[in-house]
Amino acid sequence: MFSALQLGNLDKTYFERLNSKRITAIGYELIEDKAGGMPVVRSMSEIAGSTVMLIAAEYLSNVHNGKGVILGGITGVSPTRVIILGAGTVAEFAARTALGLGVDIQIFDNHLYKLRRIKHALGQQVSTSTIEPIALSESIKQADVVIGALRSEKGRIRYMVTEDIISQMKPGSVIIDVSIDQGGCFETSEITTHQNPVFTKFGVIHYCVPNIASRVARTATTALSNIFTPILMEISESGSLEDMIFTHKWFMKGVYTFKGTLSNATIAEKVGLKYRDLNLLLAARF
Amino acid sequence: MFSALQLGNLDKTYFERLNSKRITAIGYELIEDKAGGMPVVRSMSEIAGSTVMLIAAEYLSNVHNGKGVILGGITGVSPTRVIILGAGTVAEFAARTALGLGVDIQIFDNHLYKLRRIKHALGQQVSTSTIEPIALSESIKQADVVIGALRSEKGRIRYMVTEDIISQMKPGSVIIDVSIDQGGCFETSEITTHQNPVFTKFGVIHYCVPNIASRVARTATTALSNIFTPILMEISESGSLEDMIFTHKWFMKGVYTFKGTLSNATIAEKVGLKYRDLNLLLAARF
Amino acid sequence: MFSALQLGNLDKTYFERLNSKRITAIGYELIEDKAGGMPVVRSMSEIAGSTVMLIAAEYLSNVHNGKGVILGGITGVSPTRVIILGAGTVAEFAARTALGLGVDIQIFDNHLYKLRRIKHALGQQVSTSTIEPIALSESIKQADVVIGALRSEKGRIRYMVTEDIISQMKPGSVIIDVSIDQGGCFETSEITTHQNPVFTKFGVIHYCVPNIASRVARTATTALSNIFTPILMEISESGSLEDMIFTHKWFMKGVYTFKGTLSNATIAEKVGLKYRDLNLLLAARF
Amino acid sequence: MFSALQLGNLDKTYFERLNSKRITAIGYELIEDKAGGMPVVRSMSEIAGSTVMLIAAEYLSNVHNGKGVILGGITGVSPTRVIILGAGTVAEFAARTALGLGVDIQIFDNHLYKLRRIKHALGQQVSTSTIEPIALSESIKQADVVIGALRSEKGRIRYMVTEDIISQMKPGSVIIDVSIDQGGCFETSEITTHQNPVFTKFGVIHYCVPNIASRVARTATTALSNIFTPILMEISESGSLEDMIFTHKWFMKGVYTFKGTLSNATIAEKVGLKYRDLNLLLAARF
Amino acid sequence: MFSALQLGNLDKTYFERLNSKRITAIGYELIEDKAGGMPVVRSMSEIAGSTVMLIAAEYLSNVHNGKGVILGGITGVSPTRVIILGAGTVAEFAARTALGLGVDIQIFDNHLYKLRRIKHALGQQVSTSTIEPIALSESIKQADVVIGALRSEKGRIRYMVTEDIISQMKPGSVIIDVSIDQGGCFETSEITTHQNPVFTKFGVIHYCVPNIASRVARTATTALSNIFTPILMEISESGSLEDMIFTHKWFMKGVYTFKGTLSNATIAEKVGLKYRDLNLLLAARF
Amino acid sequence: MFSALQLGNLDKTYFERLNSKRITAIGYELIEDKAGGMPVVRSMSEIAGSTVMLIAAEYLSNVHNGKGVILGGITGVSPTRVIILGAGTVAEFAARTALGLGVDIQIFDNHLYKLRRIKHALGQQVSTSTIEPIALSESIKQADVVIGALRSEKGRIRYMVTEDIISQMKPGSVIIDVSIDQGGCFETSEITTHQNPVFTKFGVIHYCVPNIASRVARTATTALSNIFTPILMEISESGSLEDMIFTHKWFMKGVYTFKGTLSNATIAEKVGLKYRDLNLLLAARF
Repeated sequence: MFSALQLGNLDKTYFERLNSKRITAIGYELIEDKAGGMPVVRSMSEIAGSTVMLIAAEYLSNVHNGKGVILGGITGVSPTRVIILGAGTVAEFAARTALGLGVDIQIFDNHLYKLRRIKHALGQQVSTSTIEPIALSESIKQADVVIGALRSEKGRIRYMVTEDIISQMKPGSVIIDVSIDQGGCFETSEITTHQNPVFTKFGVIHYCVPNIASRVARTATTALSNIFTPILMEISESGSLEDMIFTHKWFMKGVYTFKGTLSNATIAEKVGLKYRDLNLLLAARF
Repeated sequence: MFSALQLGNLDKTYFERLNSKRITAIGYELIEDKAGGMPVVRSMSEIAGSTVMLIAAEYLSNVHNGKGVILGGITGVSPTRVIILGAGTVAEFAARTALGLGVDIQIFDNHLYKLRRIKHALGQQVSTSTIEPIALSESIKQADVVIGALRSEKGRIRYMVTEDIISQMKPGSVIIDVSIDQGGCFETSEITTHQNPVFTKFGVIHYCVPNIASRVARTATTALSNIFTPILMEISESGSLEDMIFTHKWFMKGVYTFKGTLSNATIAEKVGLKYRDLNLLLAARF
Repeated sequence: MFSALQLGNLDKTYFERLNSKRITAIGYELIEDKAGGMPVVRSMSEIAGSTVMLIAAEYLSNVHNGKGVILGGITGVSPTRVIILGAGTVAEFAARTALGLGVDIQIFDNHLYKLRRIKHALGQQVSTSTIEPIALSESIKQADVVIGALRSEKGRIRYMVTEDIISQMKPGSVIIDVSIDQGGCFETSEITTHQNPVFTKFGVIHYCVPNIASRVARTATTALSNIFTPILMEISESGSLEDMIFTHKWFMKGVYTFKGTLSNATIAEKVGLKYRDLNLLLAARF
Repeated sequence: MFSALQLGNLDKTYFERLNSKRITAIGYELIEDKAGGMPVVRSMSEIAGSTVMLIAAEYLSNVHNGKGVILGGITGVSPTRVIILGAGTVAEFAARTALGLGVDIQIFDNHLYKLRRIKHALGQQVSTSTIEPIALSESIKQADVVIGALRSEKGRIRYMVTEDIISQMKPGSVIIDVSIDQGGCFETSEITTHQNPVFTKFGVIHYCVPNIASRVARTATTALSNIFTPILMEISESGSLEDMIFTHKWFMKGVYTFKGTLSNATIAEKVGLKYRDLNLLLAARF
Repeated sequence: MFSALQLGNLDKTYFERLNSKRITAIGYELIEDKAGGMPVVRSMSEIAGSTVMLIAAEYLSNVHNGKGVILGGITGVSPTRVIILGAGTVAEFAARTALGLGVDIQIFDNHLYKLRRIKHALGQQVSTSTIEPIALSESIKQADVVIGALRSEKGRIRYMVTEDIISQMKPGSVIIDVSIDQGGCFETSEITTHQNPVFTKFGVIHYCVPNIASRVARTATTALSNIFTPILMEISESGSLEDMIFTHKWFMKGVYTFKGTLSNATIAEKVGLKYRDLNLLLAARF
Repeated sequence: MFSALQLGNLDKTYFERLNSKRITAIGYELIEDKAGGMPVVRSMSEIAGSTVMLIAAEYLSNVHNGKGVILGGITGVSPTRVIILGAGTVAEFAARTALGLGVDIQIFDNHLYKLRRIKHALGQQVSTSTIEPIALSESIKQADVVIGALRSEKGRIRYMVTEDIISQMKPGSVIIDVSIDQGGCFETSEITTHQNPVFTKFGVIHYCVPNIASRVARTATTALSNIFTPILMEISESGSLEDMIFTHKWFMKGVYTFKGTLSNATIAEKVGLKYRDLNLLLAARF
């Protein structure tokens, strides 16, 4: 379910079939919690962020024919340079791991308030910059690892780093594109799989597996059931799913088809189907 | 050279041949620096320590058929438990990485002053214990990762963890035996290679590659040349290697055969050859 | 005033008498500040949280016939284990003290966003878990100290830890139930007093004094007057209390009876009296 | 044994009797470890330092008729002021606890290198001063808690704070004299017991129990057995106690009478007995 | 533009002229970002806060005939005392620099939630107090540096520190009044310039340059263009400035005259001109 | 006295005159403390290190016609780059200040154990490198500030950075040569004074005032009297200066002429005078 809605391979027929069966479908990754956050996206991002540096370390070492360089700061050896595009949850957890390893990191994002928040979370020493094309290019050319971790609320991002820049990166450098499920941060990104996780282009190793969290399936499962268990318990207390939807605004956000009608505007626009507001649909019931 | 002396496969013939050719041989890993430390061992230990947690993370994930568990602390999911045997440089750098990842670590060592030093380096929150067999067993049974990082000055350690305890560990747990070059901390340890780095026994994944630093060959090379370059420059300034040995006490520690005579007591005892003190050998020259 | 509303001994007659005298009564602990927080609850919780670990330390030592164990991490001695139920202000300040002492803490709460906030405040090393009954029981059985610091917005919580689990705790362990004013987190909790602060059940020392902050009466007084002084000054500037209520939304939250009518829904429901919305009451005045 | 040597009530007859029985007596608190530290003093000091702030908190609260002040920093309330005389292990652990509680601390010592070491251990924010009488007096008059933690290598210190200054302290302030076993840091100090731990003079609460570590007897026992167990094992491996003494320089430091002769210069001088160097005594044996 | 609105020299004629030309004027410092913060004020405050301690250090040293005192904590020398009035962004960045230098700081503010936020950002060791006149006076008399960093939402503050208190400060102390653009925190404050940045009164050095950020003009320019570039790009995408205003609520906050009508209530009141709500103005257009 | 011996303008006549008068001269900066450190050098280095970043900040700002750049990390603006040559006390305190300001620092030194020590003191995130000419040149060309803080035990260093590299630095960059009293780290360095502290060469601002600590004369005086007061008191207790020298090994290090004979080997060699070992001189007296 998670990947279905995220990966953009949305299919008109799929929704028509749901509607014909009058199914009420809920995208768990769209649910919000009481504090206004999106708990599923947040938890999966914590996992992806924590994992991403470990993957980079793997591909920098010799064992996978990498540069043979450590991800971290050994006394007297200039530290590895890591660039993170984006300043959200993935970036925060990736940066924290990187700092623990003694890596030299730079975070780029165009939202000042996100940069402020991440500086606040990680300490003032963290280098943050707005995305200024020339400065970004210079930094990327000197980097050992570049993490793409931008996230668009509109469901799709435009790449930030052109093929031209990537072709000038140092051989054996590693790109990990966590944003690949929204189209990717790099012009050269192409979706890969856990079976064949990387490809090399211009001498740069690309890791573009969409759902990184599934690398640690058991942890991901626990994290998700931490979110779903209280929801399921509230549904059972509410009497019915419909009552739950009606009485819990934050839960309502997850509903994308309701008894035969599409109720999510973004999806409706993408697949070219009609859409009705869920509040109106619910009001009509009573 | 590094592995030759460390791995214990010392061969009488090898030294006899050196002596017959009146070679002066220097074990770089035996050299001390001006502050009394052993710079090669220290640098390789920094690298091994920084790498060891990344290896553990790799084998805990699904990609190598591990438990599918993240090495780190995701909000709401009990953190992974890591036990480190030993409180030296490897332990310090492994623990620092682990703390950056949000792991729950426990450090065991029998030297209180080492435990104090590591607490001082990592912060008072780090849990340290002397090695009390029953408490250690209980902890290991609940651990996800156990790192063996004890180091003996006498060149050889006796395993600390018996087969019996390992057989009670949770399936899919990971053991990394950094002390394997001195015999290993675990009864079940057997040397593995970078080509076939792991084997599974009692459901526990064992990683026992002796020279972990060679996983990041380029970094290791830089770290070593940071040590050797100033030494070579001092040798060239001293006029001859012999003058260098004579005038630099800290360098002298690295000499194990001197112009036909074995001068390292530990090696002499191991291979059953005669030994003479280097000070006397040098004094005799003048 | 603080205890009157919190301790749940709400009495219908009390409110009827207030109303008959057409008194406007304000519960200071219900007032919100401009940033939406509840300053009185927050300040008293900071004090309670900072105090709670000191109390635990007292009852773990021999002087009160405790286990004779230090609350903290001495080199080479496994650290004391503390469990905190709840992830609010009390938990945050208790945990901070515990970390300063080198204690091994685990925080349990069912709200992921609270666990995230406390991790953010205290550092990623803090172990957080959602409340999963089996895991919680296991942890409690191994704990030296358990702090109950759950807080319900509805004014009353249901205990989380059964008598059965408590009976399996280690003898001499200490329970401090900060939530006792809302009913308590433990089945065995019973209100105690500053005169007789503890009782022992199943060998476990229970400290259940409702208003812990009064242990440090002078500090509590200063903290409260820090909140009230600016309010009183605003009242005097506003001309009358009524004007103050009318023009300050955040202050209005504290009013529970207004000139003869009960205006707090929760109290009304509890004591079985009629209730009218304060906005309507005020609107009616003009 | 620990208290016997420390508390200064050394008795000539005691040593004469030991000698007449040709006993070899070892003061465990005099033993040094391989790194040159004194492990027993160090461990007991860690415990005392960690405990001392908790005791101060107890006597500042109302429960023992203290000022009713919290030991720590509540938002908006000026933090409690703590002064620590001395910059050794007790001071380090006391200060760490204090910092965790948010207390405002000042450390006074006359040894710059000790002040540097403690700043290094605790962070640069810690305020350190050399002991300049006027500045010290001013600070003490404004303090809420004063910890005496000076330690003399010569076994006895002279008080640093006169009765006159103490008489000007704020009523309800707390003095804890950890140095009481060496005579005390305050002119007003007098030994107290765990049964009657405090007395009040000039309105200032004095806590002068000599062996604070025994407040947490179980932890102290574990800490001591962590030190003694490996020693006892080495003795049994060495064949005899005498062999152990002969072959372990660091252990030798603990021996104060050897087979009928006093071998500790400090004790000899104090009790007025003859003394012979242990090296000579041992050499004579072979 | 920045200074024009801030410095209070608002001129009725200026606005009448703007209106007669039917200009739409935007005060960039009034714009809010998507997260509700005011990015220009925030960025300039970060710069001012970071700079303010460096200025204090300059005037404490001998080179400008100051006291010859270091701003920071040298081992064994009591640290410099710095007081910060206010707990906003300037205070946060000033305090962070001060802590890095080892200074002893105290923060005063009347908003508990701001004090909480700054404690959260800087660590619990930071001393925070509400503004209680007597305690504040005592602290100021002992201070080496006092920073005025209060900020009023209403555009103007009343001084907090009277001439009488300043006359009792230690000679050579330094006052920096960052709030001078809103009237200043000190009765003795008078605007100075970058050419003549200080004057001395009662022996106290006063630095009252209104726009401190212009000391580092290049950094300030980069910080501002980081904010304006994305806004200008959104305007060009929106088609026209009017469309931009209409569709971006956060941008609307910056508009103070719209096509001939004053639309900012605060300015209108100050200069005595008529005011109309921007929403109504815009609505009227369609 | 401090500058006399340090600045290298040692004059044969000066010592001959001392000897003819049979003066016993003590260089306080040569005295060692009981822990083996040199307290005067160390204290002056703490002050210089803490001050150096504040000076850099001054010359980067516009007020002295600098680049107009802030020394620190403002959100979204790439942080200032600071390079520190040397890893001793000056470097440690300079780096700590820099980190507090959010600067991006790199430390270069050829002694691995010094780099390790400084990483230990400042945290693993600090970037350390051995001095590799090409890498160093590249870094210096991109730096905003370069601090020269190398210190030779032999009294004189050879510059590390050539005129050629400095000529390629960015215009407006700042060089501060703390090592100027030993000859300087930069080929372009020339001694300046507190009256005319800087000169510009190749567009780079050079600050080469030898005794930076005298910028904060009062603090320096306090720091020195913290060292000298206990020494003077010990001299008065010892009866005579000679007895003091004889009984205090650490104090003896400071004596460079003793009753008519030069006793410091380094000075003797420099000025071409005869030298006798102080131990022999003293022994001869009895």
